[in-house]
Amino acid sequence: MPTPVNPPRGMRDHLPADKRRREGVLSVVRGVYRSYGFDEIETPVVEESSRLHSGLGGDNEKQVFAVLRRGLDLDDLKAASSVLGLADLGLRFDLTVPLARFYASHRAELPTVFRSIQIAPVWRAERPQKGRYRQFVQCDIDVLGEPGPLAEIELIQATTAVLDALGLTGTTIRVNDRRILLAMLAHWAVPAELTDQALIVVDKLDKIGVDGVVAELVALGVTTPGLDVALTELADASWQTGEGPGAPSWLDADAFADLTALRDALPGSTLEFDPTLVRGMGYYTGTIFEIAHPDVPYSLGGGGRYDGMIGRFLGSDVPAAGFSLGFERLVDLVTLETDGDDGLALVYDKRVEPVQLLALQSALLSRGERRVRLERRAKNLTNQLDGLAAAGFGRFASVRGGEVVDDLEIRTIG
Amino acid sequence: MPTPVNPPRGMRDHLPADKRRREGVLSVVRGVYRSYGFDEIETPVVEESSRLHSGLGGDNEKQVFAVLRRGLDLDDLKAASSVLGLADLGLRFDLTVPLARFYASHRAELPTVFRSIQIAPVWRAERPQKGRYRQFVQCDIDVLGEPGPLAEIELIQATTAVLDALGLTGTTIRVNDRRILLAMLAHWAVPAELTDQALIVVDKLDKIGVDGVVAELVALGVTTPGLDVALTELADASWQTGEGPGAPSWLDADAFADLTALRDALPGSTLEFDPTLVRGMGYYTGTIFEIAHPDVPYSLGGGGRYDGMIGRFLGSDVPAAGFSLGFERLVDLVTLETDGDDGLALVYDKRVEPVQLLALQSALLSRGERRVRLERRAKNLTNQLDGLAAAGFGRFASVRGGEVVDDLEIRTIG
Repeated sequence: MPTPVNPPRGMRDHLPADKRRREGVLSVVRGVYRSYGFDEIETPVVEESSRLHSGLGGDNEKQVFAVLRRGLDLDDLKAASSVLGLADLGLRFDLTVPLARFYASHRAELPTVFRSIQIAPVWRAERPQKGRYRQFVQCDIDVLGEPGPLAEIELIQATTAVLDALGLTGTTIRVNDRRILLAMLAHWAVPAELTDQALIVVDKLDKIGVDGVVAELVALGVTTPGLDVALTELADASWQTGEGPGAPSWLDADAFADLTALRDALPGSTLEFDPTLVRGMGYYTGTIFEIAHPDVPYSLGGGGRYDGMIGRFLGSDVPAAGFSLGFERLVDLVTLETDGDDGLALVYDKRVEPVQLLALQSALLSRGERRVRLERRAKNLTNQLDGLAAAGFGRFASVRGGEVVDDLEIRTIG
Repeated sequence: MPTPVNPPRGMRDHLPADKRRREGVLSVVRGVYRSYGFDEIETPVVEESSRLHSGLGGDNEKQVFAVLRRGLDLDDLKAASSVLGLADLGLRFDLTVPLARFYASHRAELPTVFRSIQIAPVWRAERPQKGRYRQFVQCDIDVLGEPGPLAEIELIQATTAVLDALGLTGTTIRVNDRRILLAMLAHWAVPAELTDQALIVVDKLDKIGVDGVVAELVALGVTTPGLDVALTELADASWQTGEGPGAPSWLDADAFADLTALRDALPGSTLEFDPTLVRGMGYYTGTIFEIAHPDVPYSLGGGGRYDGMIGRFLGSDVPAAGFSLGFERLVDLVTLETDGDDGLALVYDKRVEPVQLLALQSALLSRGERRVRLERRAKNLTNQLDGLAAAGFGRFASVRGGEVVDDLEIRTIG
């Protein structure tokens, strides 16, 4: 019996049309980010296991694919005090932890303000479900070394330009600041040890509504009176909420002022203030943002400022902010012109000599054809031509023995 | 103390200039292979562990990075009867095993003759040494479903075109056929069970010479008389050896005739017949080939026909042949024009407003600038400009408050 031949659970093969489409979208992303002065880098797909379990990755750390240390024997297994202890490496779950490690390693060779592009796969052992994969591509840009708001401004500007170049209209960027979230919780007298859990609950406001959030906060042990009123205010908040004299007392004024400055610096973008925006990762320290698109209920990407993280590796703090596009979600929404169906198929029969086919192919390519495929004539030519057209070869020529380029009759398929 | 920040042992980070160079070379490889009608595909970086240990990978199977099964606990470790049994996945060690699995899975969606491109990293836990990495990129093309010599012809033709496009002159392609090797061993009366080991020894002929090979073969238990004469003949062999009436009796005439036909079908290529060429992988069944370059002692790539392999996964045989370029070796030899130093840096001081910088940047990009980077003015402008030039920004303009595009004085650096 043949071995099963599917890709590993939750992972995908990419066939030619799919791969071409993906590469086309990535090429736009890469090109626009480069035009804004960002530089692409690459790190290995695996990182030291200890680095992937340093607490920076939140829940993603539980989903690391662990790579077994080399040279283990059965005695090592029996002596092991933890399963994870057998792994010295793991597949990265994001591109931010590797970037922080990269920057700490290469800082001396990088410009003072370093703008990076990373376009690469990451892995998470999530329960596979529709639209969720265990290997997926992220497109990250980061600005390292810039303490001021120009970092966030450049990130949002360049990413907005990418969305424009991909023809994705109608997106908005929701913005918030971790400082606003923390001040809000302090105002509600939420105990510090409940911060992370309370934020996870607040994050669900658009899904489970005010009553749901109140119930979950109460279950957590948050007993602030008037939570329902506060949460309704939160759900309704917009730029107007914080502007003018009637700003609510839970709103951190400094952080809000920074957000309005960000908005005013980006006149062409559609920034929406959303104090319920949380973002999962605990490492954010300031501005956070997320891309919303009217056609889909999930975000297309997000990011924020994470000033403390690089210091964890480097030993001295470096200001940092990043924006990550969820490529798998993006690629499904984009309708992009591919490089088309301008390929030419040379349909030959058995009597044609290989040396002649090669000469024809070379001559056609040197005359400016972009793609030339050799294709042995099948019994059912109609089917064959349909297949060729679907594969991007919209023209064909039948080749008989001795044919030369000038005698070829090139016909359009269909 | 900060955590160590190097990439994992034997693996590398790619900084901007390095990454740009690599992507430039890959783009040429991809473009040329596409022009010859090949289609790019992608598979997950991990495959089922059982597939990576099915015997097809030879020594590479010992170098698999194994990925721990999810959900193991300490009891599973104690009960394990093998270390490998704890792994359900592994990082691929080549692109051929995944391709065979891919083809078996998707055959119905692919053309009868499928020409694939794969450009992707592979992993091997080799002892790290100069020029050897544990993660490295391979560029493979394969022709699946073509039983005749046109497969080999197309592979060599397209790969020769890649080498030309990369400006790599002086390469030769050494060719041989597994049938010639097997007939030669049979002629020497080498017992069948020693075939693989004897071939590994013959493969060393150019390194350890006739005496060395004889000694190793004798140590293996091969006691053929006159081995030294036969090996000297082998080392001196060329096309002339097999052509004409004096062909040596160890030379398989059918296989040699196929090789000369291959040579004659590729008049522009430099094919050399080399009966000592072995190639490591046991799955080859016919033609084998390798690229030699005068500047380096190792091959830049190789491949051959492997007709039996896909059947292992599919249950029915499919003829197949492939050519794999060793990208890491190639990239060091290539001098390629990168996209140059035409970037423009806007060097601004603190008083300039972000909104103004963004407007300038956008305006410059829409006027046709390819790359525009915002760069805060450093104390040492000379150093800063040098760094910019090295990073591909060969021009700069100082920006003062209120500046507009038409007032910018753009100067060349250096």
